[in-house]
Amino acid sequence: MEREELRKRLIEKIDNLNKPKGSMGRLEELALQIGLIQGTLTPTLTHPCHLLLGADHGIEREGVSISPRQVTWQQMRNFSRGGGGVNMFCRQHGFDLTLVDVGVDHDLSDCPAILSRKIAPHGTRNFLYEPAMSESEAERCLSLGRELACNCRQKGCNILCIGEMGIGNTSPSSLWMSELLDIPLAQCVGAGAGLNSEGVRHKMQVLTQCQQRVGHTTNPSVLMREYGGFEMVTAVGAMLWAAEHGMVLLIDGFIMTACALMASRIESDFLASAIFCHQGDEAGHRLMLEGMGVKGLLQLGLRLGEGTGALCAYPIVESAVRMINEMNNFDNAHITKYF
Amino acid sequence: MEREELRKRLIEKIDNLNKPKGSMGRLEELALQIGLIQGTLTPTLTHPCHLLLGADHGIEREGVSISPRQVTWQQMRNFSRGGGGVNMFCRQHGFDLTLVDVGVDHDLSDCPAILSRKIAPHGTRNFLYEPAMSESEAERCLSLGRELACNCRQKGCNILCIGEMGIGNTSPSSLWMSELLDIPLAQCVGAGAGLNSEGVRHKMQVLTQCQQRVGHTTNPSVLMREYGGFEMVTAVGAMLWAAEHGMVLLIDGFIMTACALMASRIESDFLASAIFCHQGDEAGHRLMLEGMGVKGLLQLGLRLGEGTGALCAYPIVESAVRMINEMNNFDNAHITKYF
Repeated sequence: MEREELRKRLIEKIDNLNKPKGSMGRLEELALQIGLIQGTLTPTLTHPCHLLLGADHGIEREGVSISPRQVTWQQMRNFSRGGGGVNMFCRQHGFDLTLVDVGVDHDLSDCPAILSRKIAPHGTRNFLYEPAMSESEAERCLSLGRELACNCRQKGCNILCIGEMGIGNTSPSSLWMSELLDIPLAQCVGAGAGLNSEGVRHKMQVLTQCQQRVGHTTNPSVLMREYGGFEMVTAVGAMLWAAEHGMVLLIDGFIMTACALMASRIESDFLASAIFCHQGDEAGHRLMLEGMGVKGLLQLGLRLGEGTGALCAYPIVESAVRMINEMNNFDNAHITKYF
Repeated sequence: MEREELRKRLIEKIDNLNKPKGSMGRLEELALQIGLIQGTLTPTLTHPCHLLLGADHGIEREGVSISPRQVTWQQMRNFSRGGGGVNMFCRQHGFDLTLVDVGVDHDLSDCPAILSRKIAPHGTRNFLYEPAMSESEAERCLSLGRELACNCRQKGCNILCIGEMGIGNTSPSSLWMSELLDIPLAQCVGAGAGLNSEGVRHKMQVLTQCQQRVGHTTNPSVLMREYGGFEMVTAVGAMLWAAEHGMVLLIDGFIMTACALMASRIESDFLASAIFCHQGDEAGHRLMLEGMGVKGLLQLGLRLGEGTGALCAYPIVESAVRMINEMNNFDNAHITKYF
């Protein structure tokens, strides 16, 4: 079926379910979107997967985060033992969790639950002075992302969630946002995991210097190389592959939204595959979503990262799919149609 | 443990989970609330139940709703066959659904899945001209509500959701809201299931006349008798019993929020037991929540009723309980505490 014809028939089907037209609100939008992604009037969600990508950031050396870099490996280890927020949500919603070390500054080889795919052993370089990664490192990230998404697909997954663990990664996210949406840095920089106002001022100062070093650009390759985190560029690769292969993507908070923004500049159709699950309180997040013309599904004040905001929204997405498949329509329910 | 001591210890426990303080946002508030309701540091949710109460309203004769009254019984029958929105959410989240006819204007005795507890066979009287129900009918509703909640409790339920099906029931809800919160009717009246602006004007006109007939009062008994629906007063009774017996209450949209408001005027501690799950687009809903000093958990634009907005939020509530029980704390996760 041609896309516009499918859209018409999905809308007809949703409007004819036994409920006042539009009364299921955002669930109706989701059902339409997922039907279009999957090219069907009867969408399904199968084998949901969560990729948790961990890496460290050179820029952390400049004191742009409230947490020290060792929290990255400590949390990765904690996840590998099942004790993190991400584990709890994955258990609750039946997600198959894959933990990947794409450049954590620590030897995690004693954790068999963590897939070791380090792009570099100590994380990215400090982008206050030099590009965060080389062109070939960026290429390897994108390729790894494609591979990881493909592995999920091969397990039968058609809905993919991606989370991150990387102390300092709101900084590159703010820079990507500022450049790609042409928004002054001051509106893109927030408190991260809990900086005070002095901390935010310092972060702002550091990132302004970084922006001056690199100069304004909207070139995705340049921005990924100059500022990117290994976990972020890997996420971009995974997102692009997943979208290209008809998977539904659950997008988490500020950092993953920045990755989705980047993906949308590489592949213009990308956003059709992305569900923005949670709008956080991080200063720039609402602005970034607006800049992309999308709206977050939940606003629960989460700012944990790890993909938890996206996982939290999964049951709502599932409800949308159940709605279009399980609710009776006016014909088979024998209800007076009232609009 | 004394309540204030328990609050202190719950906050300590939540703050010591391995996450930046406050980073789980609304989930932290929910965990605290449910811990306090259950009087424990390790809350649980058991055997979730949903009561779906159906009844007709005399005021419907005045054309205050877009849907004709027969939709009430048609939908009740549809629910009894599993084809409604409420059924889908109950299946998804494992709720034990009880359908109760408390005064639907139709013989539903051929539907064994519907519990027949009619307060009056044709629904309430038309409150444009006379009180919707007698004092003894209101008493029977409250008593029935207590009984229904108690039945759930005896099945092992400690989290109760209540939904309604009753064409015309935004009208009594608007009147309760206007009187109890002293807000002009114009700010309490909305489009219901989908009235156009002319329809809203007519509804406003009718309800103004009703308010003139009865005169201003904040007396719960008078308001329940004068304007109440059987399903609404029964819901109030169920809510009060559930709160008194330490159950968690999931409150749905505009109509159930009006019932919770009424319950809070009968029992001043009531709100501590209530989770307001969904903030709808119905004109007065936000205003009513604000008037009670509470905030809805989700904003998904749902306006189906049936309790669907509350059911939809259940996994978020479950996440909060899992968080406080399953997440490691900074001690056992060996993570640098960073705040």
